[in-house]
Amino acid sequence: MTDTFPSRSNCPINYAVESFGDKWTLLIIRDLMFKAKQSYGDFLTSSEKISTNILADRLKRLEELGIVMKEVNESNRSRVIYSLTQKGLDLLPIMLELTEWSGKYDAQTSASQAFLERIAKDKQRLIREIRATWEYT
Amino acid sequence: MTDTFPSRSNCPINYAVESFGDKWTLLIIRDLMFKAKQSYGDFLTSSEKISTNILADRLKRLEELGIVMKEVNESNRSRVIYSLTQKGLDLLPIMLELTEWSGKYDAQTSASQAFLERIAKDKQRLIREIRATWEYT
Repeated sequence: MTDTFPSRSNCPINYAVESFGDKWTLLIIRDLMFKAKQSYGDFLTSSEKISTNILADRLKRLEELGIVMKEVNESNRSRVIYSLTQKGLDLLPIMLELTEWSGKYDAQTSASQAFLERIAKDKQRLIREIRATWEYT
Repeated sequence: MTDTFPSRSNCPINYAVESFGDKWTLLIIRDLMFKAKQSYGDFLTSSEKISTNILADRLKRLEELGIVMKEVNESNRSRVIYSLTQKGLDLLPIMLELTEWSGKYDAQTSASQAFLERIAKDKQRLIREIRATWEYT
């Protein structure tokens, strides 16, 4: 980790911003976590229009940090598949808290009221349910 | 909000990264939330060594977003005091989740084991307790 991080401090908030504190990384994690996207081409179609060079850079960094892993599809060796590691999946509670906060403060939010209510009412059960779906994949 | 945001999308994760997706903003929020820092000079002393121009830029943006407010001290008009608004204080659950995740994955974390255990064991009570201390300030 020493090489990957400038080590500005050992503060846990600093570790988080060093890992994904930029305008794009959490969008890639969102696509992997909630939108079943898994290929380079999938990420490029998201509405925020990430550029190919930023995408390549962030995927490489996420792999180095152990948040994302990549596999080459055996039947089509040009197809590379990305997925979240355990460390990446453990970002779920953070992603739900971010969703709840934005749902409260962004008047234009696209988050559905039903999903926001589930987060607010029983976050722990929602986390268990989402985690359970991952265990079968 | 239209002016402040490039409006890449209305996704709640995008709203969060547009608000504080960079290497510095969450460190300022940490200082206000957990370290009783409140002045420009206070923020400059943090271990990550934020520069004056980045600090000024981020504080201005946090004010525009309604996350931070500033007051001029009546007895010393050159002293400006920053604090979190309700929208800023509502970032507490996110900050605790970030702390928990980093505490789990950063071998060099400075987060105390006792604090990490409190987050893991009874996050809701911890949130209530921290919120209660703010109500007296």
